[in-house]
Parts: sequence; structure tokens; C-alpha cells
Amino acid sequence: MSVVKQKTDQAVQILKELDIDLWLTYIRKTSEVHDPALYFLLEDRWMTWQTAILISNKGHKFVICGRYDAANVEASGIYDKVISYDQSIKDDLLSVLDEIKPKTIAINYSFDNIAADGMTHGMWLRLNKMLEDTEYKDSLISSENLLAALRGRKTELELELVKKAVDISELGHKKVSETAKIGVSEEDIEKMLLQFTEDQGLTVSYPPLVHVGPDTQIGHGKPSPDVKIGKGNLISVDYGVFYEGYASDLQRMNYILQDNEDIPPVEVRRAFETCFKAISTGAEKLKPGVLGWEVDYVARKVITDAGYDEFMHALGHQIGRNVHDGGCLLGPKWEKYGQSVMYPVEENQCFTLELHVYVPNHGYCSIEENVVVTKDGCKFLSDRQMELTLLKL
Amino acid sequence: MSVVKQKTDQAVQILKELDIDLWLTYIRKTSEVHDPALYFLLEDRWMTWQTAILISNKGHKFVICGRYDAANVEASGIYDKVISYDQSIKDDLLSVLDEIKPKTIAINYSFDNIAADGMTHGMWLRLNKMLEDTEYKDSLISSENLLAALRGRKTELELELVKKAVDISELGHKKVSETAKIGVSEEDIEKMLLQFTEDQGLTVSYPPLVHVGPDTQIGHGKPSPDVKIGKGNLISVDYGVFYEGYASDLQRMNYILQDNEDIPPVEVRRAFETCFKAISTGAEKLKPGVLGWEVDYVARKVITDAGYDEFMHALGHQIGRNVHDGGCLLGPKWEKYGQSVMYPVEENQCFTLELHVYVPNHGYCSIEENVVVTKDGCKFLSDRQMELTLLKL
Repeated sequence: MSVVKQKTDQAVQILKELDIDLWLTYIRKTSEVHDPALYFLLEDRWMTWQTAILISNKGHKFVICGRYDAANVEASGIYDKVISYDQSIKDDLLSVLDEIKPKTIAINYSFDNIAADGMTHGMWLRLNKMLEDTEYKDSLISSENLLAALRGRKTELELELVKKAVDISELGHKKVSETAKIGVSEEDIEKMLLQFTEDQGLTVSYPPLVHVGPDTQIGHGKPSPDVKIGKGNLISVDYGVFYEGYASDLQRMNYILQDNEDIPPVEVRRAFETCFKAISTGAEKLKPGVLGWEVDYVARKVITDAGYDEFMHALGHQIGRNVHDGGCLLGPKWEKYGQSVMYPVEENQCFTLELHVYVPNHGYCSIEENVVVTKDGCKFLSDRQMELTLLKL
Repeated sequence: MSVVKQKTDQAVQILKELDIDLWLTYIRKTSEVHDPALYFLLEDRWMTWQTAILISNKGHKFVICGRYDAANVEASGIYDKVISYDQSIKDDLLSVLDEIKPKTIAINYSFDNIAADGMTHGMWLRLNKMLEDTEYKDSLISSENLLAALRGRKTELELELVKKAVDISELGHKKVSETAKIGVSEEDIEKMLLQFTEDQGLTVSYPPLVHVGPDTQIGHGKPSPDVKIGKGNLISVDYGVFYEGYASDLQRMNYILQDNEDIPPVEVRRAFETCFKAISTGAEKLKPGVLGWEVDYVARKVITDAGYDEFMHALGHQIGRNVHDGGCLLGPKWEKYGQSVMYPVEENQCFTLELHVYVPNHGYCSIEENVVVTKDGCKFLSDRQMELTLLKL
């Protein structure tokens, strides 16, 4: 059974659970603006004209689309009814609504859940105009809770795909340790990872981030051709791939020993151990029912209690059809994160656990692991980095 | 000078011309939902947190973005000021607005222009909430006219890229004629084109469409492994590529001669000639100032006057950063096309001219050319298909 078939079946169940009558995804020209909900609703081909995808809590699965898009949707075998039109979607949409008679219609917009905010404002205006003289005009609600559950609760097939993505990402990280040499630049490492990914027939889930030594600039910046590996450097690499559409996102650390060193200096070891402990502390807290911010809080406290500067991002985001999947976020209660950190954690959600500290004269020390939430805790999908990888070059 | 630098400069000029004070593009997590306006505002790296990109008619070019995204934006050298934040974009955004003091703020939403409708409804709600107690709360207008002009009016550099995309697409079409054999399936042709594209280091601008013989299903359907080339078949292929982000979109026709034929039967020749004449008629009409629907009308009339069924799509869409670029559309006045067919044509816009008719027992006959609007007419970017390519297999 395809992922899309599984997810549309799961959507019916979640609609029942949330007591929502209908989920309506209303889109156009998906090559221009792509609603992320479509990952769970359509196989890969693009839709050209205005399209309505309707799934009800009674099990209806209908699509209304332009004439030339209909064949693909029919061929997928997922929808019971595919209605095609030439000039306007309105009449067909209204008559399907009259068949389903929903009291509540969930629409893909959200203040905080980015993955549930795929409807453009223009399409919102269009939909409201179509419904203005109907009994459905006040029925629209946000699909954010539906999509948080649908994206978060991975099926077994989805978990297998995430695990494959994690495994391949780990192979890429091993190649970083193997190819690191004095004088190799951040950009060289990035290129190697991009080539490795292409050789696997895959794409990266995010442009690889490479930070070498104390003078690099932390963040989402492009790896530099001028920042090169030297002795005493920490090398931090953030690299993940998409495997059949599912993402991994891992950070691994290498340390380049000085000539006179057999182990890293105490400040480097302390940094790694503190990051490691913070991730362990977060992982121990992570289980169904705990709120996103609570997990962030305990891990963040390990870092600040040890006297390091706070990391200015969330401890963990979900991974799935996107490297930053929406819904529950393991982050602090900052305005920009909004309600996403107030969601309770659920079983079968996949999260990153990630943080970093800065070590003067050596660079950034960062770790990022991938975990899946189990019935009463969490399980690491990644082979945890237990200690710094030491390189004598 | 990069395309993005040119387009941000051009945006300032268009803002002046349209008497709009400020263009505000407000986005988040561009890997999840990608506002198509970003093609003209940012180099390729993704933005993770909420970001505001501001261009004013006085020439201000500012970005407000999350801390970890700032380095890339700065490195592009396009923006005068890059302001980074950690917890909330609000204070920085309001103080930049107070610096610019706009009376009108163009926002990326549109009822009809898909390429100008990149803002999600959730971001619309967020922006309005931020502005609710300020003097800017009633200043928001649609950026659709700005984006129609910006996307439509190609710079010389953009025209070069479109032309390259057209040239490569023509090479792909030549390969179709070379590799066509009895028994080769629609899917085989699709695969050949995908491989050819990959060999060029490019991507397709749209999944190739292949229609073989009378029993295929017209539209955006996936090419079939079961529909195979036979004698007397028309082979219609729709194939384009992206070259450095710019699209081509061409349809070419092959006809497989029967054993006893030296030329195609009269009904096949008549179909091709009618399509050819309809495109010529549209091209003759196409020049600055004419309205989109007027060009469609004259070409459509050639088809219906000849007794064929009307093609149920627009005669021509723009090409550029997307294979279906927004703004002026050469289409009929159907509800779904809305205002897009009422725009006047402008110099340096690139359009497709495309249509098809059905020939019983032989298949679909379709032609699609790519043209650029000149000062007083239009010029073909593609090497026009003047006659059916005849194959004796």
C-alpha cells in the first residue's frame, strides 16, 4: 500500500477523532505554490488548474480537478470519485458539498503550524467568495490539528523511510571523517557530501552546513572556500537526506588533534560532554503527553547551568516529509514559535534533538540526533555519537 | 550582474511607475511553502525563520531575518541592510516601516495571478495582527500588478536563459524523432527525455507529456507503458527544461507513415496545417497593448472555423521562472482565468503559443512554440515546426 493511500486512510480516522466533518484542500498550479499537505494527498505529478481534494469523516475521498489533470488522479486509485471540469470548479464543488453536508470544513491555514499553512491568501479569498451565499460560509476552520496529527503520527512504512534516510546520512558523516585533511575547506566538505548524495541517487534534505574552527560563522550560511581545516579545530557538520521523500537531519563532530595531543583539551571535552548530557536529558524527558517546551527546557538548562551561552533555536523539530516538519516543536516559549511548543508529544512522532556550544579557539561543538517517540519514551533512530571523532592529520 | 540584482533594481523602477511605496514579502520556512516572488529576491539558499524582504520606491532594499539566515543574505550583496533577530520579527519590522513610512504596502496575494499569490493565509493573519495598532493597518494592497510587470518584463540576461532552455528542448525533441521505433511506448519516450535532460545536467520544466496514436488520453497524464508506437500514429510530445531557473515549453509532432504512404493522409495534413495557421494568426495578433483574450480569440477561431473541437485551455501562458508564469494570459474569458486574460501584453514578455486538435484513427495533433514580445510584434524563440516530421519505420 502506498504512503499516500495509508495517509488518506489515516486522515479519515483523525477527522473522526477530532470531530471534523470534512478536510478540504483547495489548490492551483502546484508547480508555483505547493501546499505541503499534498505530500499526503497526491502522488508526485503536478496539478495545473484549481483543484479541490475532499476527505470526510464518513470516508468520502473525492477530487475535483481540471480536465487534463484527471487521468493521473484516477490512475492513483486513491479517490472514489474524480470529477473534472473545464471552465470553473465552483458548481462541482458546491454540489459535492451538498452531497457531504459538512458542518465543519478544515482548511490548510495556520498561524503557527507552518506545515498546515499551505493555502495562499488569494485562494482563501476565492473559497470564501464561492461559499458566501451558501450554508457553508461560516464552516471553515483551520486544519492545523488534523495536519499536526497526520504528519506527526508516522505509519510503519514512513518510519522505515525515515530510518533509511538516517542510515544514509550517517554514511555521509563517516565520509567526512575519512576525507578530512589539513587545508580542506568547508566548501570542499560540502561538495563531497553533495556528490556522495548524488551518487546514492538522492537529494539532501537541507543544504549541508559545515563549520570548521573558531573563525567560521555559525548558522545557515554557505560553507566557505576560505575557511580550512587546521590542527586544534572542531569540525561540525549538519547533513541529512531525503529517502523517498522522508528526511533525516544529523550533526556530527570531528576534532583535529594537535601534534602534541592524544586527547582533546579539557574545554573541548567538557563542551562535547555537556552537549551529550543535554541531549540525554532531553531524550529522557521525551514521551507521549509531555509538552514540547518542557523537553526543550530541561535540555537548555543543562547548557546554561554549565555556564555556556544559550543556543538560539529549538532543541528539536519533527522530521518527516520535510526536514522541519510541522506540529509539536520542542522549543522555548518564544513569540516566533507561537503555539507549536504547547502541543503534547505523541507516539510515532520523529524528532531531532540538537544543540551546540561555542569553544573559544576551537570552534562550534554541536550534536544532533534523530529519535522516534514510543509508547512510553523515545528510541534513537541514529547511532548516537558517544564521543568526539578524533583525527590525527 | 546577477539576475536577482537586476530584478530587485527593476522592482524599484516598477514601484515608482505604479506609485506603490513599498513591496513587502513576508515568508517563513521556504522549504515548506515557497513564495514564487523569492526567485527574484533571493539567491538559492533557503530561509528558515520568518523573514521580511522590503523594497521601496525610494530604493530601500532591506531584509529582516532570523540570526542563522543572515550570513547568506549579507553575502549576496543585494541588500543594503540585513537585520537579524532571535525571538520575534515584530519590533524590527515595525521600526523599519517607521523608517520608510509607506502609505501603500504591496503584499504577495492575488485572486487571479497565481505567481503573485505566494503569501499563505496564516502569514496574512500574522502580518495583519502585527500591524493592527499601527498606522499601516489599512495600507496593504495586492502586489499582483507589480509582480506581473516584474516577471513579465524579461531583462536581456533572462531572455538569454529562456533562449538556451528553448534550444535544449529542441534537441530533446530531435531525439524523439531519432529514437521512435514501432513498439516503443509513451513511457519509453518519457524516460529517454528524462535521461537526456539529466545528461545535460538540467531538470525538466514539467513532466514530459507523450501522446501516441488515437487511443491515448490527452492531458497531463503520465505517459503509458502500454500505449506503443504503430504505423499511422501521430506522436505528440510536450517537453521543456529549466536552464538556470528559466523554462522552455515546446510541443513537436511526428507522424509514422503507413507502408503504402509517402505523405500523411489528408485529414492528418489538414489538422497540422490548421494548427500551424492558428498559431501564425495568434502570433500576428500578439504585440504590446493587445489584451490577452484577444490573441486567444483569433487563434481559437481558426480552429473552430475549420470545424474542429475547441481546445479547452488557454492559447498561451508566459514562460520564465516557472513554466506557467503569471500575469497576462492569452486565454479565453473563462471564470477560472479571471482577470489574467484582461491584462495588456507588454514588450519582453515570453509566451507559449499552443493548441491541438484530434484526428480520429491517428491521434492528437498539437504544436507549441515559444515567442518573445517585441516593440511592435513578436519574435519566435523556437525554430518553428513548419511541417510534420515524417518517420518511415
